Amino acid sequence: MGFDIKDYLSSRKVLVDKTLLEYLLRFKSDLSKLHESMLYSVMAGGKRLRPILCMASCEMLGGNIEKTFPVACAIEMIHTYSLIHDDLPSMDDDLLRRGKPTNHSVYGEALAILAGDALLTDAFCLIVDEGISLRLTPSLVVSVIKDIAEGSGSHGMVGGQAIDLSLEGSKVVTLEMSERVHSLKTGALIEVSVMTGAKIGGANREQLSQLKSYSKALGLAFQIIDDVLDIEGGREIGKSRGVDVRKKKATYPSLIGVENAKKMAAKLTNEAIDALEDFGSEAVALREIAHYLGGRTY
Amino acid sequence: MGFDIKDYLSSRKVLVDKTLLEYLLRFKSDLSKLHESMLYSVMAGGKRLRPILCMASCEMLGGNIEKTFPVACAIEMIHTYSLIHDDLPSMDDDLLRRGKPTNHSVYGEALAILAGDALLTDAFCLIVDEGISLRLTPSLVVSVIKDIAEGSGSHGMVGGQAIDLSLEGSKVVTLEMSERVHSLKTGALIEVSVMTGAKIGGANREQLSQLKSYSKALGLAFQIIDDVLDIEGGREIGKSRGVDVRKKKATYPSLIGVENAKKMAAKLTNEAIDALEDFGSEAVALREIAHYLGGRTY
Repeated sequence: MGFDIKDYLSSRKVLVDKTLLEYLLRFKSDLSKLHESMLYSVMAGGKRLRPILCMASCEMLGGNIEKTFPVACAIEMIHTYSLIHDDLPSMDDDLLRRGKPTNHSVYGEALAILAGDALLTDAFCLIVDEGISLRLTPSLVVSVIKDIAEGSGSHGMVGGQAIDLSLEGSKVVTLEMSERVHSLKTGALIEVSVMTGAKIGGANREQLSQLKSYSKALGLAFQIIDDVLDIEGGREIGKSRGVDVRKKKATYPSLIGVENAKKMAAKLTNEAIDALEDFGSEAVALREIAHYLGGRTY
Repeated sequence: MGFDIKDYLSSRKVLVDKTLLEYLLRFKSDLSKLHESMLYSVMAGGKRLRPILCMASCEMLGGNIEKTFPVACAIEMIHTYSLIHDDLPSMDDDLLRRGKPTNHSVYGEALAILAGDALLTDAFCLIVDEGISLRLTPSLVVSVIKDIAEGSGSHGMVGGQAIDLSLEGSKVVTLEMSERVHSLKTGALIEVSVMTGAKIGGANREQLSQLKSYSKALGLAFQIIDDVLDIEGGREIGKSRGVDVRKKKATYPSLIGVENAKKMAAKLTNEAIDALEDFGSEAVALREIAHYLGGRTY
């Protein structure tokens, strides 16, 4: 019996969508426009890669995936907030995201900023509220909150976005600088997804270190492939091709060429998979996710 | 020997400024522009009312105020982020704040948005990192994080800002709607400041309930006076007068007249002070803060 990664990802996506919707509807109140705008972007689709990684990592260690739900969904809410803010006119000025109008083009700039702010803040609320009611210990909740805040704050995701911004149009971007941007902007939250899932699953120190290697390599491979797809990608990517080129963003393909970028992504994918060796057959999902992401053509 | 509220507030402000700077410099790294922009707004002044309330509430109960530092500073970081985002062109479009150019007029809109995002996120990091090293129990840290996230998210501060936005220029704003906006937009974080300080100070349930009454009344009085000052205020307010009127914002003075608004603020100030009765002479600071804020003319 084989493991069908496409079936796996799509059934997990259904589970994440359902859980996210449930949580967000629980938040709803008479503050309707704000919540509508939050819901719009959270439910606008997406692969749900981060929550799926969080669950998979917990499950691999024999943990109960239900215990990851608040954390997995909080991470997706934070990811969504970052997309809403990235798309703003003063940032990337994008009108389309996942094939749909971006938040600010539907709700206006002011409400889009607030929807992002609220998603970020409510994410922490969700972890505490639901985490405690799922009987995560306070120490575990604190540890997970620290990982998430660190991975998404000024030394993580937002820090990466700020450097990226400062490099736009710059002529002297090195591979190292580009790697630093990627590892912060995209990598940090992917790492956090895997690591928090592992902690909830009861990982020991050595397992955490192996999963750190896995998620670091995975996150970078993921971003390189994204850059390649920005040049070569088909319709399914849901946003116009060539955006990075138009904005003169420093990407792997622009620095080392498309073919070398693909080779680098393949190498990183193998590194990620190698880091899972000790987990044996239990690691099938994390392994197949890396394979799948490394070979994406959409 | 009298209690000099002006001395008290200014010495506490010095303490908060020093602690905030220390924490923020610890965060600093090579992500320099972002951190510079965060520092700029956090250190741009302000009364530091929220952290001072947090400390005062803890101290009244016999707690060690040092234990409140991370939480008090985190609340001020969140307050600062909200000001940065409120001042943005798509929101209030303000060029001056506390007499200085607003964040976006110095660093540009994109970096101002990111500085706000980072301050909000790093605030949670600070609470966990420093809270744990000051030996707050994980349960207390979790409880404080919940209060802060709830008070500043879609059902608190951001929710209030979203309603305020939706009411701008509207002709049918009632006193109830205006009170709701104020209690969420400004009141929620003031309440959280008092309540988290109390929890760190070891308050029991009854004390928490009395401090809830105090902080609710205080927060509303504070906002009403702010509205009045927007019409009557002197130079010291650091931003142009008449901003609310120009934007047709529904304020207490516009709804019930300046004199009635002043009377209402005085009544609320008395309510706040009454709620402190059981704390006796220990409550001198919280009592004097209410008196002082209720009688502000700047």
